[in-house]
Amino acid sequence: MGADSPVLLATVSLVSALQMGYFAWRAGLSRMGHKVLPPSVTGPPEFERTFRAHQNCVECYPVFLVTLWTCGMFFSDVTAAAGGLVYVIARQIYVNGYAKSTKKRLPAFYPTLAVFFTLSLLGLIGMLHGILHKYFHIHL
Amino acid sequence: MGADSPVLLATVSLVSALQMGYFAWRAGLSRMGHKVLPPSVTGPPEFERTFRAHQNCVECYPVFLVTLWTCGMFFSDVTAAAGGLVYVIARQIYVNGYAKSTKKRLPAFYPTLAVFFTLSLLGLIGMLHGILHKYFHIHL
Amino acid sequence: MGADSPVLLATVSLVSALQMGYFAWRAGLSRMGHKVLPPSVTGPPEFERTFRAHQNCVECYPVFLVTLWTCGMFFSDVTAAAGGLVYVIARQIYVNGYAKSTKKRLPAFYPTLAVFFTLSLLGLIGMLHGILHKYFHIHL
Repeated sequence: MGADSPVLLATVSLVSALQMGYFAWRAGLSRMGHKVLPPSVTGPPEFERTFRAHQNCVECYPVFLVTLWTCGMFFSDVTAAAGGLVYVIARQIYVNGYAKSTKKRLPAFYPTLAVFFTLSLLGLIGMLHGILHKYFHIHL
Repeated sequence: MGADSPVLLATVSLVSALQMGYFAWRAGLSRMGHKVLPPSVTGPPEFERTFRAHQNCVECYPVFLVTLWTCGMFFSDVTAAAGGLVYVIARQIYVNGYAKSTKKRLPAFYPTLAVFFTLSLLGLIGMLHGILHKYFHIHL
Repeated sequence: MGADSPVLLATVSLVSALQMGYFAWRAGLSRMGHKVLPPSVTGPPEFERTFRAHQNCVECYPVFLVTLWTCGMFFSDVTAAAGGLVYVIARQIYVNGYAKSTKKRLPAFYPTLAVFFTLSLLGLIGMLHGILHKYFHIHL
């Protein structure tokens, strides 16, 4: 395994994937606890909040993976992995908060956005470097 | 960064990820504009169309990423990136159209399917080449 | 194309992506067959089950891709690809079953979990090896 092996990015990806599995399991538990029979997705507010928190994570997850890997491959894998850990922690607080009340989802939503913004920007800088290098032979 | 660096595929991936973020933000704006309180996802038709347009993109997005990268890695990164740009533009027209009326979502849905079909087919051809080469030592 | 080319993982990814497209198309057919006009996602139980079966696959799919590739890159691509095929078959039976009745979704849900668990565990072992090797120069 060479020095350019993306083992840090892969580790953060797998941790976040396991977290997604945990959120799905939690929505399932809430479904059973509130006797909401599938395929229905409506029921008591507690269930709907837990369900919707998971859905929000489902919407965000591919975006997260793309920003994690583009930043990690074209800027710095350590920076990207650190951002990824912030994302995983923020999502945990987000889902915990949303399960309690709609308002409590917000404090941990902004760090999610900050991670997306930072990883995207750094990834974009790295990729512009790469494009200038590969297609225009310009080395900054 | 070597000549085989997938910088074009990464750039198209990041652009599409930012577009997904934009669609999510638009659904959020529509939610606020029509006073649809989370976790509810039902409300005035304008909100439901904007929300559902985003959901359709969420359903398509991982499929898009897989076809983009398999075509890009095993057939041609330039072809895949070009297909990816068509996808991003088609999704933009799709969401804009769906937000206006249910019928207006259709014209830009077919290009989405055409991109999936083309990238999958080219990727499949490239991967068959790869499998014949790697496991059967057949060089076409 | 070198011996380390992940052509098996890419092939399984593309097959699973095409399957996701098929599930989406099936939900669309069910929508038309039961005259459920978009953007509505509620209607007769048959439609709601087919729709929800697809949604469950949408929730699982990025998690599957991450476990497939981490196991494939850091443990064994043949093992990961075999697990991926089990996943694809299990999802097919899951969606077929769920479309018939809510209870019939369960038998094929457990193999899905078993694939996630196995691929994650093997990927984790492989990545721990990789981290010990790369950052601590420990070769087990």
